[in-house]
Parts: sequence; structure tokens; C-alpha cells
Amino acid sequence: MSFKRPAVINIGLERFAETFRRTGVRFIQLDWRPPACPKELTEKLEELAGSAKTARANDEALKRLNTSEPVLFDVLRASEAVEGLNGKVLCHAGPPVSWEKMCGPMRGAMAGACVYEGWAPDTRKAFDILAGGEIRFSPCHHHNAVGPMAGVLSPSMYVWAVKNRSFGNTAFCSLNEGLGKVLRFGACSEEVIERLRWMQNILGPALGRAVRSAKDGINVSNITAQALQMGDECHNRNVAATGILLKELTPLILRTEKETSLVGDIFDFIASNPHFYLNLSMAACKASADSILGLENSTILSAMARNGTEIGIRVAGCAEKWFTAPAGMPEGLFFAGFSSADANPDIGDSTISEVAGIGGFAMAAAPAIVKFVGGTPSDALRYTKEMGLITHGRSTRFQIPQLDFAGTPTGIDILKVLEKGISPVINTGIAHKEPGIGQVGAGLLRAPFECFSKALEEMEIS
Amino acid sequence: MSFKRPAVINIGLERFAETFRRTGVRFIQLDWRPPACPKELTEKLEELAGSAKTARANDEALKRLNTSEPVLFDVLRASEAVEGLNGKVLCHAGPPVSWEKMCGPMRGAMAGACVYEGWAPDTRKAFDILAGGEIRFSPCHHHNAVGPMAGVLSPSMYVWAVKNRSFGNTAFCSLNEGLGKVLRFGACSEEVIERLRWMQNILGPALGRAVRSAKDGINVSNITAQALQMGDECHNRNVAATGILLKELTPLILRTEKETSLVGDIFDFIASNPHFYLNLSMAACKASADSILGLENSTILSAMARNGTEIGIRVAGCAEKWFTAPAGMPEGLFFAGFSSADANPDIGDSTISEVAGIGGFAMAAAPAIVKFVGGTPSDALRYTKEMGLITHGRSTRFQIPQLDFAGTPTGIDILKVLEKGISPVINTGIAHKEPGIGQVGAGLLRAPFECFSKALEEMEIS
Repeated sequence: MSFKRPAVINIGLERFAETFRRTGVRFIQLDWRPPACPKELTEKLEELAGSAKTARANDEALKRLNTSEPVLFDVLRASEAVEGLNGKVLCHAGPPVSWEKMCGPMRGAMAGACVYEGWAPDTRKAFDILAGGEIRFSPCHHHNAVGPMAGVLSPSMYVWAVKNRSFGNTAFCSLNEGLGKVLRFGACSEEVIERLRWMQNILGPALGRAVRSAKDGINVSNITAQALQMGDECHNRNVAATGILLKELTPLILRTEKETSLVGDIFDFIASNPHFYLNLSMAACKASADSILGLENSTILSAMARNGTEIGIRVAGCAEKWFTAPAGMPEGLFFAGFSSADANPDIGDSTISEVAGIGGFAMAAAPAIVKFVGGTPSDALRYTKEMGLITHGRSTRFQIPQLDFAGTPTGIDILKVLEKGISPVINTGIAHKEPGIGQVGAGLLRAPFECFSKALEEMEIS
Repeated sequence: MSFKRPAVINIGLERFAETFRRTGVRFIQLDWRPPACPKELTEKLEELAGSAKTARANDEALKRLNTSEPVLFDVLRASEAVEGLNGKVLCHAGPPVSWEKMCGPMRGAMAGACVYEGWAPDTRKAFDILAGGEIRFSPCHHHNAVGPMAGVLSPSMYVWAVKNRSFGNTAFCSLNEGLGKVLRFGACSEEVIERLRWMQNILGPALGRAVRSAKDGINVSNITAQALQMGDECHNRNVAATGILLKELTPLILRTEKETSLVGDIFDFIASNPHFYLNLSMAACKASADSILGLENSTILSAMARNGTEIGIRVAGCAEKWFTAPAGMPEGLFFAGFSSADANPDIGDSTISEVAGIGGFAMAAAPAIVKFVGGTPSDALRYTKEMGLITHGRSTRFQIPQLDFAGTPTGIDILKVLEKGISPVINTGIAHKEPGIGQVGAGLLRAPFECFSKALEEMEIS
């Protein structure tokens, strides 16, 4: 079927074509956007986009992302596992941030962590201590770790320990607490602290015994790959993945514990939280993404993370440097009683998912997610197709059945983002902007171009 | 976008349009098929299709299918649960069949069941006994039961007991044995019998204790509805549904058993079989479909079942009468070492799934199933859309995210099948045609029009 003699060619914003559609005027919609690259960087963008060195480095980056093999090998105390997380240190999501600039939910989570660690008798006192400078704050990413939402990680918490078997590096993430009033969304009431203590005393040690009893560990990519065939995108929808993880863990727990009642408590805790898999997935994504950290000449993202005040990206060729911009505001669906007026700006390290080629980039695999973040199943398809325009290639492991088993778009290239004027789409939970409240919804947004231009400015080809 | 002045309109077989496509001739493909109704029944077809009584009855049928509420309330011995399954009786899949006409895999399953029940010392002797007429054969469907593939159900086996809470009727199905060499595919070696004994002595009783401990039983439709959002169609893909069932059963088992090692064995057995849910789903579909059995004037199917020799359908308005035709031959994917030459004709009661609006009718929800039964994800979408043309309506419970959460096509109307010339698509496992071997593949086929015309001939409006 061919399309002949259109009367109008509409360039860019589709909105303008609505009139033609309504009135029956024939038209072609040309998908074009103004480039997002500042004028003074256009020449550099073209140069890098044409550079054989960059191309080779990005090929290598994609290869590393695709051949990474993240394996869960332990669950243990953060103080024993995570370098530098000893004494009065609290890790948090996103790039570095001071107490003064810290957003409400992260302050709430910090306060809760102080009480949990016994550094403060209550959250009111905790706020004083935190403001007093006695506690050091440090991004999870500076400790081979990641954390969802506020991402607060304190020494006594248990962490998933994931090794990238292909490259030898290790990454960590806390255990997911569940939904509603939880520390990662800034809640810090007694029930939150109690739950964290149960996780420290019962859940964490049991998971540790179970995981260590698995001869070859648990291959996390395999779980993600299966889950993408089962309607998850493994950032905001982890229903299937949590089920598969539970199927892997339960026989191990049953063989390392004696009491069926204890196993029952653990099973119920995991089974009642459809996001339980998220934190393990994030540790796996971090373990994969770190394989390209410092890869010379590569313009592929190795991290994207938000602290609720700023978003920061890391580009492989610029090693550990952060390029930041103000955090955006997600649009989405709010829980009953809340609205966008309650929302904190974008927060969390969970965008490591998109960096590793899942989450927003795999939305086509998860049509049912639109019930959680808004939109329609065809939007979900469209996001994945669009993200294919800004990645260096495709996953060889994560497939989308809905797109004839095509690999997920993988390896976000800052050059393509700026050239195409297409910014990475992010699936995210939404925290209340005040400390102590918790989750109020979930939604979508785009990473701002500003951090990508800053990275391009800094990028040097050697 | 509009399409003007095509040069050719191609009616019916798409194959003829290939030349136009290749040579660039503009054409429109008109989806039309010759009606499947024999000439002498055309008038009756038109009369019934225009009858207000039939329309009302079919509305009622669809309403019953949609408001059925199948709930798992027990797991117990067939001899205690299933009426008429006492003494030397063996139930089987499909419409009635004699030993002489019985296919290889059903004979193999019958022989295995004889040994399992202690009626014969070995399968060789069992064949003699079975041929001798000492054992009575009876379709599962005549006992409010269903069985996958050979569908052999003997008195000592444990069954899922599902009650349709809206209409009060109950349905039963055996427990799924797993993959490979299993009774339902005609295997009958010692390992098959041993497994059946373990299921009788350990699995069945434990499941019974667990299920009875659930205050309100387990709502089976809820599991199916969730699984359709997770890539299952709940006939040949039950990966997600089995996981959800396991998530429902495990806490109950953990609270009714003391030994973690016993729970571990049961968990492993279920977790290692991605089809474990199938039999429970079939019992639920049977419980729903039986709500329209004998509904006067309704031309909707209440059953479709194959015994490996014949396929039979039951139409609501014709109560318990079977309308049969020779069983078809599935096309699909074969396991290594096997080919279509090894395949037995279509067999099993599992087509109760399609009758209830899932399976082949929900294939769009399960794009990954094509790796098991053949074809592409777009075929899967196409099947569901096509089946929408021969059903009376849509499910109000089972939704397909890929089709913007449209309900699955539900209520197969024999009038539409014959009028449109579109036969129900069936997802099925493929058994080896010889007894004692087992499963050799999985595939797709269409129910033959012959049984639909026979039913129309018989149908009377009162």
C-alpha cells in the first residue's frame, strides 16, 4: 500500500496535525524535533558522532553491557559488605547533596535511619543531629551501591550482594521494604523502624543463609529476561520477577531453615510486595553498568540517578564525574487523596534500570504497567521504539515478545540524545515532598537535556 | 490517512494477493471465506441467527459464563469426590470411545492407570484386561470432570475440586504430573507409576490440608485474570499462573505442615512444572461452562473435547449430547528427535479453556507462546481478533493488555462459526501416537466444521 500526493507535510509537534486529521486533509507527519544540543557544542557533537574512536569505544561498552553476568551470591550486613559504610555514614540516592539542599523525603529517610541505627532517640532529635553535621552523607554510587527513591542505606541494613561474573566487580542494594509507609519514600514512623529491625534480625540473615547455600548463586539477568516475557519491565512493574525470585529463593530457604512458621513469615513478606525484586534488579544493573565506568572515549551512560533535588548522569568516558541538572517532576497517577501538588521532584538510583536497558526502555514488554504509571499500552510500545533511537544498540539477552523478540534498546548514548533531541524516559515512583509521609503515586518523566550537554562539554577523546 | 482508488479487490484467500504485493499493484484484501454451513442447513442457520429467542438465550449464556465464580475448595481422592468413579472404572478425555477405536496414547494411559490401581501387575497384562472388557470406560465430562490429553482419571488419584459459587455446581480435574514421560501423554513406565503414587500419598493429601485451611477457598478466575496480564493464555502457557498459584498455596502449606523438607519436596514438584496450573484452570473452566449446560435455545458451546480419535462438542441448548467428527492433526513444533509422523491426532479435554474464553482465544495476551506452539507474536494477536468474530461477546473478567485491555472473546456460537466459516483455534500439546512414549511437541489446529453442522442440524428452538 503506498501513500501518494499528501497535501500537507507536518513537521514536529503532532498537535498541529490534529486539524488536518479532523477535517480530512491528507497529510504526512514527519517525526522531527529541534536538536537539544546548545549551538556552541554542535561542532563537538558532530565531531564525536563521526569519530571512529568513539564508535569503537561505544561498541565495546555495548558488548560489556551485553556480556555482563550479574549473579546474586550473598545477602549480608552493609557494614560488612559495603566499603566505607562504617561509623556514622548514611548513603543516599543520586549525586552528592548537602543537608541544606536535601529534599523532604530524603531528610525523612535519613531521620528514620538515625533512629533505626540508635543514633537518635526519635526523629525530632534526628533532624537536629543531621543538621548538625555529625553524620556524613555519601551517594550510594560512590560505594558500588544503589538505592531506590531516597536510597538511604545505613550500616546495619542487609544488602543484596551481586557479582558481575564476567568482569569481577560487585554491587549492592538494600532489601525492599514493601509499599506504602516505607523509609525509601521518606516515611520514618515507628512501624517503619520496626519493619527495618525485623528485616535486619530475621529476613536478612535467613536470605543470607539461603543464598549462600546456592552453589552457583542466582543468575539475576535470567530472572529479568524471563520477567520481560511475563509483562514486567523490571523498574516499576516487578510482579513476575518477584514471583520468579520467590520460586528461586523458597526451596533454598526451606532447606536452610527448620521452622515452617519462620519460612511462612518470610514468604508472606516477599509475596505481599510486588516490588521486592526491584532492589536486587538494581544491584544487578549497577554491577553491569559499572563494567563500563571509565571506559575511555565512550559516550554511553554508566549511571543516571536523582537525589530529589538534582539528577546526575555519569558517562563511561568521564569515569566518576557527575553531570547534574535540577530534578524533573514526574507526571503520572496519584494515590487517592494525593495530587501533583504533593509530589517531590524525581528521586532515586532506580534509573540504573534504564541505563542497563530495562525499565522505561522495556516498557513495550509491560503493557499492563500503564495502569500504574498512566498512558495506554500503545504508549508503552512507542516509548520502547523511541528509546531505540538514542541507544547504541540492543540487548542480546532482554527480549520483548511484543516486538517480535527484539532486544531492548541498550546503551544510552549522550550524542544521540542531544542529536535527536530525545531524552531518556524514566518510570518512577513518586514520593511526597514532605518528610515522613511516603509514596503518593507513580509516573513518567524525561531526563533533562542539560546534564547531557554538560557531559558533552567535558567529554574528551584521547 | 486514506486509501484511494485501489486497482484490485482480492476476495478471500490472501495467497492470490501475493502477486499484487510483489509487483506493486495496488489492492485491497477483503477478508471473506466461503460459508462453512452445508447448503441444506443454510435456511436453518439464517432462521436461528435471526431468532430473538436464540439471541436472548445466548445473552444469558454469556452472562452466566461471565458471572461464574469458580473457587478451589478441596483436593481429595477421585473416589470420594467424583460421582460414579468407584470400582473398575476409568475416566478419559473427549466423547465416549471404545477400546477398539481408542488411540495409542489413551491406551497407554489406561494401561498405566490399571497398574497404578493394582488391577494388573504390569502394562502387558493391563492391555489384556483392558481389551477383555472388565474395566468400564467413561468420559470425564460425564462425571463433572475434565482431564488434559488422554485425561485418564482413576479412583485413587487426587483431584482439584472447584465449586462455581454463583451457580452451585462443582467440577474436578486430576493434578498435573509434570512434563515429558507422564501418563496423560500415554507414558506408563515404572517412573510414571511411582510419581502417581507419590502424588497420591504425599502431594494430594498435603494440598488437601492446605486448601481446606483457606477460609474462602482460592478464587481461580482471579489467578487466570492476573496471568493473562503476565503473558499466559492459560492453556499451553501457564508459567505465570503456576507462579501465582504457588504463591497462594505455599503459605497455606507452610501453616499446615511441620516439616520444611516435606514442604520443600512439594514446592520443588510444583515449581519445576510450568503447566501445573493447567489442570486447576481446566476444572475452573468446566465449572463455569457447566453453568450453561442444557440452557434452552442457546447455540453457545458448553464443551469441546477430544479423545484422540474423535473431537466432540456440546452445545448449551442440546444439553449432554455430543456432536463428533474425526480428530484433527495439530501443526506445531516438535521436540528433538520427533516429527509430525509421530503425532497422535488431537486429544484432551483441555479445550474447555477455549470454551471458557481463554487458551487459543486469549493468545494475544501470550506473545511468547509462539516459541512453544509455532508462529509469530502477530499471529497470536490475529488469532484472538479472529476468534472475536465467532463468540457471542467478550469476557468481563479476562482482559488482554496488548489489546487495550479488551476482554477475551467468550462464548463460542456455532451459528457464527458456520456463518463466518471460522473455526475455533485450539492450542494443544502433541502426544506420540504409540502408547508408552509421551509428549512429542505442541501446536495449533482448528476444530472441524463437521461437528458444528451436526449440532446445528439437531438444534431446536422451543
